[in-house]
Amino acid sequence: MLHLVIMAGGSGTRFWPESRRARPKQFLTLAGDESLIQQAAHRVHPLIPAERTWVVTGALHAAETRLQLPEVPAAQVLLEPCARNTAPCLGLAALAVLQHDSEATLLVTPADHLIRPAEAFRKTVLEGAAMLDHQPKSSVLIGITPTYPAEGYGYIERGDTSDGGFQVARFREKPNRETAAGFLQTGRFYWNSGIFLWKAARLLELLSEHQPAIVQGLERLRPAWGTPGWQSALAEEFPRMPSISIDYAVLEPAASQGGVFVIPSSFEWDDVGSWQSLPAVLGKDAVGNTTTGPTCALDSTGCVIRTTGGHLVATIGLRDCVVVHTPDATLVAPRDDEKALRQLVALLDERGLSQYL
Amino acid sequence: MLHLVIMAGGSGTRFWPESRRARPKQFLTLAGDESLIQQAAHRVHPLIPAERTWVVTGALHAAETRLQLPEVPAAQVLLEPCARNTAPCLGLAALAVLQHDSEATLLVTPADHLIRPAEAFRKTVLEGAAMLDHQPKSSVLIGITPTYPAEGYGYIERGDTSDGGFQVARFREKPNRETAAGFLQTGRFYWNSGIFLWKAARLLELLSEHQPAIVQGLERLRPAWGTPGWQSALAEEFPRMPSISIDYAVLEPAASQGGVFVIPSSFEWDDVGSWQSLPAVLGKDAVGNTTTGPTCALDSTGCVIRTTGGHLVATIGLRDCVVVHTPDATLVAPRDDEKALRQLVALLDERGLSQYL
Repeated sequence: MLHLVIMAGGSGTRFWPESRRARPKQFLTLAGDESLIQQAAHRVHPLIPAERTWVVTGALHAAETRLQLPEVPAAQVLLEPCARNTAPCLGLAALAVLQHDSEATLLVTPADHLIRPAEAFRKTVLEGAAMLDHQPKSSVLIGITPTYPAEGYGYIERGDTSDGGFQVARFREKPNRETAAGFLQTGRFYWNSGIFLWKAARLLELLSEHQPAIVQGLERLRPAWGTPGWQSALAEEFPRMPSISIDYAVLEPAASQGGVFVIPSSFEWDDVGSWQSLPAVLGKDAVGNTTTGPTCALDSTGCVIRTTGGHLVATIGLRDCVVVHTPDATLVAPRDDEKALRQLVALLDERGLSQYL
Repeated sequence: MLHLVIMAGGSGTRFWPESRRARPKQFLTLAGDESLIQQAAHRVHPLIPAERTWVVTGALHAAETRLQLPEVPAAQVLLEPCARNTAPCLGLAALAVLQHDSEATLLVTPADHLIRPAEAFRKTVLEGAAMLDHQPKSSVLIGITPTYPAEGYGYIERGDTSDGGFQVARFREKPNRETAAGFLQTGRFYWNSGIFLWKAARLLELLSEHQPAIVQGLERLRPAWGTPGWQSALAEEFPRMPSISIDYAVLEPAASQGGVFVIPSSFEWDDVGSWQSLPAVLGKDAVGNTTTGPTCALDSTGCVIRTTGGHLVATIGLRDCVVVHTPDATLVAPRDDEKALRQLVALLDERGLSQYL
C-alpha cells in the first residue's frame, strides 16, 4: 500500500514575522485556503487517506501539527528529539510504517512546497508507484522541469530512458547561473524537488548498505515501537545518528549503481522560499502588488503586503518591499533581501526580543 | 481673573493613523506623557486652575475632551455645532466666561501645540497679563522668535517698543523662503503662535466693532446660557455666524489702529504639524531614528517609527520613512510627504474604508 511521509522538520525564519520558531513555514497559509502542510496531506487524497499518512516533525511542532492535521492518527506523527537531516528522518519513518505494513511503499514529500494542481501530482505519483511495481529495488525521484536557470536548487541529470522514467546519471548541487543555463539547454536536467518513492523495506536496505549507523540505531529502537517507552528510546538513539541528507546518504551512491530513476513532473511546483517568491505564486493586482487582507497602496508597486484580523495596512511610495502585519509584530523590508531578514531575526534574539521569534 | 480658553477645533488627518476623525491631533500623546490638549491645560497650573479652564471643541470631540480633561467642569467644555473658524469660537468663549466673571482676562491657546518648559510659558503669560493691566483695551499676542525661515507660518512684524512688549506694525501671511529669510535678518518678526490675551469684555467690543454679525448672534444666545436650551440655541445661531479667523476679524484691523501688542516668547514652541516634525521634537536615537514602543531598525535611518501595546515594528533598509502601528491600522510612508498622506486618507474614504478614518 502507498503511505505518505511528510517531512516537516522546517524551522526557518524566511517568512518572519508570519513564521515563528514554534510555527515555521509549513504551518502558514501562504497560498490557497490551507496551510502548506495541510495541502501536502490533502493533495494525495483519495489516493492515500489519513490512516496511511505519517508526519515527521520536531517535538516543538507536535501541537501545531496535531491541530492542523487532526485526522492523522496521533501515533503517526513522529517527533524527532533533534534535527538530524533527512536520512535519519526517513529511516525512522520507514521503521514505523513497516510495523503497520510490511509491503509499504513510501511517498516522501516536504511539508512546505506548493504544488498545483493536485490531480497532476497524483498522476505523477501513480507513475512512480507503477515504476516501483516493475523495479521494486529502485529509488524513484520526481523531477521538476526547470522554468528558469535557478541557482538555488539541486539538479538531477537524467541518463537513459527507462520503463516510465529516466535513469538518473548524476546529481548536481546548486550551480551558478551560467552553468544552470547550460543545464536547461540540454533538456536533460530537472530540479530536485525532494519528493521520492521507495519500497519502505528497500529504503532500510539502502540505508543499511550506505549508512549502517542509522539502521543500527533504528534496530535498537524497534522494540520500543508502540510502547510507552518509545519517545524516551528515541531521545536516546536519535541524537546519536549521523546528521546527513538522504541525497548524500543513499541517492548519490545508489545512482552511481544505476538504481535511481527520475519521473518528470506534470504539475506546477514552487518551494515558496521567501517573501520574494509570493508574487509568482499568488499573482499581482492591477498596480503590481501582491496583497492579502485590507490594504491601501498609494503610489506603491512590486510590494508584498499581508495583514490579518481586519487590520489595515496603508502604504505610500513603496517599491519592491514586503510589509507584513501579524498580531504582535510588523515587518517592513525590501522583498528580496533574505540575508538582511536573517540578520534582523538574529538581531531580535541579541536584543532580548526573542518573544517575537 | 485669568481664564484659559483652549481652542480644540482641530480635525486634521496629518497624523493618520494615530489621529482619527474622532480623535484629532490635540488628543494624541506625541511628546511627553500627556496628550497635547492635556499639556495645554496643565502647563498653566497653578496660574489658572481647572475651574477657570474652558475648552471650545466640536460636538464630535466632546466625549474625548471630557475623558482627557475630567477636571474641567463639564459646562466649560463648549461644543461648536459646526466649524466656524476662530472668531465665532472666541466670541462664544468670551460670552460664556463673562457670565462667570465680568472682569475676566482670557488667555487663548490652541490645543495642539508643543510648548516647553511650562515655567517659561507661564512667565510670558504673566507679562501679557501685566500689559493688559496697564492697557486694558489692548490685544496681546505671544510671538515666537523664529529659528529658521519657515514658509508655513504667519509672521507678526513688530513696531515701536511699548510697555513690556512691542506694538504690532502688521501681520504677514505665509511668506516664501526668500521673504522669510529677509524677515529673520531684520530681527523684527515673530511667528504668530495663535496665543492671545484679551480682557473678555474688550474682545466682545472689538468683535462688535469689526464683526457685528457675530456679536448679534451671541446676544441672541446669551439668555440661553445655563439653561437646558443652550445647545439647541447654539445649533440655531452658531452656523449663521461668518466663518472667519480672529486674525482677519479683529487683530488686523485693531493693529492698524495701534491697539495690538506682541510679547516675544521665552519658551520653545512647535506646532507639531506632521510626522516630519517629530524628530525635532522627540530627538533621534544613535542611528538617526525617532522611535516609540518596541522597534528594531536594521539599516534604517531618518525614520519615525511608532507602535503601542507591545507590538513590535521591525524595519530593514528604510530611509526617511514613517511607520506607525495602531491597533487597527498601520501606515508606511515617506515621512515628509503630507500631500500624499492627505491623498491616502481621501482614498480610504473613496474605497469605503472610512472605519479606519
